[in-house]
Amino acid sequence: MAKNVGIVAIDIYFPPTCVQQEALEAHDGASKGKYTIGLGQDCMAFCTEVEDVISMSLTVVSSLLEKYGIDPKQIGRLEVGSRAVIDQSKSIKTFLMQLFETCGNFDIEGVDSVNACYGGTAALFNCVNWVESNSWDGRFGLVVCADTAAYAEGPARPTGGAAAIALLIGPDAPIAFESKFRGTHMTHAYDVYLPNHGSGYPVVDGKLAHSCYLKAVDACYKHFCQKYEKFERKQFFVAEADYFVFHSPYNKQLRKSFARLLFNDFLKDASYLDEASKEIFAPFAHLSEVESYGSRDLEKAAQQVAKPFYDAKVQPTTLLPKQVGNMYTASLYAAFISLVHNKHSSLAGQRAVMFSYGAGVTATMFSVKFNEGTFPFCLSNIAAVMSVDKKLKSRHEFAPEKFVETLHQMEKIYRAKDFMTSKDCSLLAPGTYYLTEVDSMYRRFYARKDKEGSSKNGNNANGH
Amino acid sequence: MAKNVGIVAIDIYFPPTCVQQEALEAHDGASKGKYTIGLGQDCMAFCTEVEDVISMSLTVVSSLLEKYGIDPKQIGRLEVGSRAVIDQSKSIKTFLMQLFETCGNFDIEGVDSVNACYGGTAALFNCVNWVESNSWDGRFGLVVCADTAAYAEGPARPTGGAAAIALLIGPDAPIAFESKFRGTHMTHAYDVYLPNHGSGYPVVDGKLAHSCYLKAVDACYKHFCQKYEKFERKQFFVAEADYFVFHSPYNKQLRKSFARLLFNDFLKDASYLDEASKEIFAPFAHLSEVESYGSRDLEKAAQQVAKPFYDAKVQPTTLLPKQVGNMYTASLYAAFISLVHNKHSSLAGQRAVMFSYGAGVTATMFSVKFNEGTFPFCLSNIAAVMSVDKKLKSRHEFAPEKFVETLHQMEKIYRAKDFMTSKDCSLLAPGTYYLTEVDSMYRRFYARKDKEGSSKNGNNANGH
Repeated sequence: MAKNVGIVAIDIYFPPTCVQQEALEAHDGASKGKYTIGLGQDCMAFCTEVEDVISMSLTVVSSLLEKYGIDPKQIGRLEVGSRAVIDQSKSIKTFLMQLFETCGNFDIEGVDSVNACYGGTAALFNCVNWVESNSWDGRFGLVVCADTAAYAEGPARPTGGAAAIALLIGPDAPIAFESKFRGTHMTHAYDVYLPNHGSGYPVVDGKLAHSCYLKAVDACYKHFCQKYEKFERKQFFVAEADYFVFHSPYNKQLRKSFARLLFNDFLKDASYLDEASKEIFAPFAHLSEVESYGSRDLEKAAQQVAKPFYDAKVQPTTLLPKQVGNMYTASLYAAFISLVHNKHSSLAGQRAVMFSYGAGVTATMFSVKFNEGTFPFCLSNIAAVMSVDKKLKSRHEFAPEKFVETLHQMEKIYRAKDFMTSKDCSLLAPGTYYLTEVDSMYRRFYARKDKEGSSKNGNNANGH
Repeated sequence: MAKNVGIVAIDIYFPPTCVQQEALEAHDGASKGKYTIGLGQDCMAFCTEVEDVISMSLTVVSSLLEKYGIDPKQIGRLEVGSRAVIDQSKSIKTFLMQLFETCGNFDIEGVDSVNACYGGTAALFNCVNWVESNSWDGRFGLVVCADTAAYAEGPARPTGGAAAIALLIGPDAPIAFESKFRGTHMTHAYDVYLPNHGSGYPVVDGKLAHSCYLKAVDACYKHFCQKYEKFERKQFFVAEADYFVFHSPYNKQLRKSFARLLFNDFLKDASYLDEASKEIFAPFAHLSEVESYGSRDLEKAAQQVAKPFYDAKVQPTTLLPKQVGNMYTASLYAAFISLVHNKHSSLAGQRAVMFSYGAGVTATMFSVKFNEGTFPFCLSNIAAVMSVDKKLKSRHEFAPEKFVETLHQMEKIYRAKDFMTSKDCSLLAPGTYYLTEVDSMYRRFYARKDKEGSSKNGNNANGH
């Protein structure tokens, strides 16, 4: 049986087009700091008309295969987690099969996993389980998390974002799953959902969404601790993990969620919390669960206690979620990538606890353990391949007016057929896939920008 | 590690409302035999306004748990395969969590798997892999395949159907996976797809769909045979399996698909084919692959050779697909249930080869081996619990006029909000869930008909 199964390689793609939150704030007439301090966001990536979830997925998968030198025949399973419903029957995974057809590899299991922002985690678990199962055939699994989040004018607009992430799965991984420690919480709720009514914008019950999220944090943490205690025969507290990585629609949410873990530890009488912290928490010790979700005072107190722990254990995960925005299924893994980017030289031997959340409700807390690994599947090479800094630095900042104009353009082609895009890929990096056409039968066609910089017809990913 | 993982229990639900294909044929003014002989279909189930994919799934899951005496706490993973997009974000799985909340079990992994009719198979593989993985916690997995297929007036109308199937997954199963023998074929094609344009009816490229299906049969069979030969060190031919179970949109498709396997065996010079059969196939030996997909003569010749093999190895799988119709993700498993229903007393020691297909394209051929098992997880009890005959006999036949009227009514409420259903569950069996309301926020509410026959408020499955 395969051992130390986990993530052996990673790549990330996000659109090079972005808008600064500070500029957007001013443009929208919002109070100063509303987006940057209130939400805690710095910048937001968005797709122009030549990019979508499928093009970003094609880009990140081909990039990963090329940069780690993986023969496409070496992939035995490929699955996608996404909230984007481009087609209601045909999976995004089938579009990605175009990358494997030229080498004759059609024998690749897996389809799309769907539930709000949780689909990527479902796909990841499925892939890891496959490698550990009897049906594993010795090849790699590949997980793609890809989404675009774009909102109508209004308070939700600054919480958009876009990215696609590819995770290569195999044994002897530098990022190995601790599969026994896993806490899941799933329930039926109409917190955030997307009825099939054609607008493309979700229905949000804000108050319910808030309590659903916090309740899921609590429940997952409880289950996670129980499992840890069962197998390790000692209690689990925040102190047992080096980093905590959260699904983060915006930075503020993450601060609240992490602080909640500290409150849970306080209720379990954790010895690592000093007297001062215990005093701050004391007035809230007897709140009922429901009261505790609604208490702004508790929220503030918890964040106060959590501050030094947040700086050490969470802050290193925040770079990409703050710079790129909400990426739905990719958000958690973009936070994880930020951690690897920032700390790769010191991660060996350390543990990260991950919290994945999808409205509806589906949530899981799980953990991974790092080791240095062997080239090309080692932490330092993963950080080098991802080149997060370079990608962030080579972005093109749009003025808010141009950003708004782009979104209007996108609304016009949403669910449309029978149009050609501008095919303008001048802002895209070499090797990026882009949408060229949606024909009269709604079939989508893509091309790839040449690796040296111009578009290259011989490498098209076309309908047939 | 868990051994002989597979299906330990099964239940099926299909609506009690149906229309005879012979009557529909006459009503539609189609030539006599067009539906019954041309398509090979006998009868078709359909939902009335009180049933949908979610209600059928609630019904079949609660029925399985009750009839096999499974404590809901014993379920550790639940996943759904469906082509129905009731909500574009919230999974069907989260609706089913309502059945586990009363006993306090929220720790259930899994979401929805999506690609046309293949989602159920993806969910099944994921569940089996989970039981074989490190993250398995000793509890059962549960797979639900549920779909309704209803078509607009025209030639596709008689190819509708509706059902929900629940498969309980665990070790030491009477239906054990032979996980090493698996042939997958996935590729990018626009054969049948469902763009997000709001009509709810798929776009079909008939000619492409036909060749995609046959190509997938060929490719999966080839991979399956290779894997079998690698591990068993002998060639695989149709003669090596006792039964072949196919995804079957309508019976005629199944006959063609099975016949294709015989043609493949002929090309591999199978010794079990007699001289007469070889002579029939001989004129087609040199067709190119593409030519072979288009040849009606080959299709006929192959079906002639296949006839005796079809009668022995396929015919026992056809009862429910012919009586209920196309059930999309549930079709393959309804065929499998037909086999268990018809042959349970003689299946021990035998092998069934399964072929799952989803447009787009995703397809896998895999195999299971039967053993008698131990009560309640034994073949005879599974057949008794499913009570296929009783369910078929207690159906209510609608005249074609009333069937058409029902579909009109269903079209009106498709994607609608803010309405109450008739709540008329007089035709439903005791214990059936039914839709009562879709509120102004698109939230769906269900109730359960009392197990003694009347509706029971205490057992409602409501939104909140």
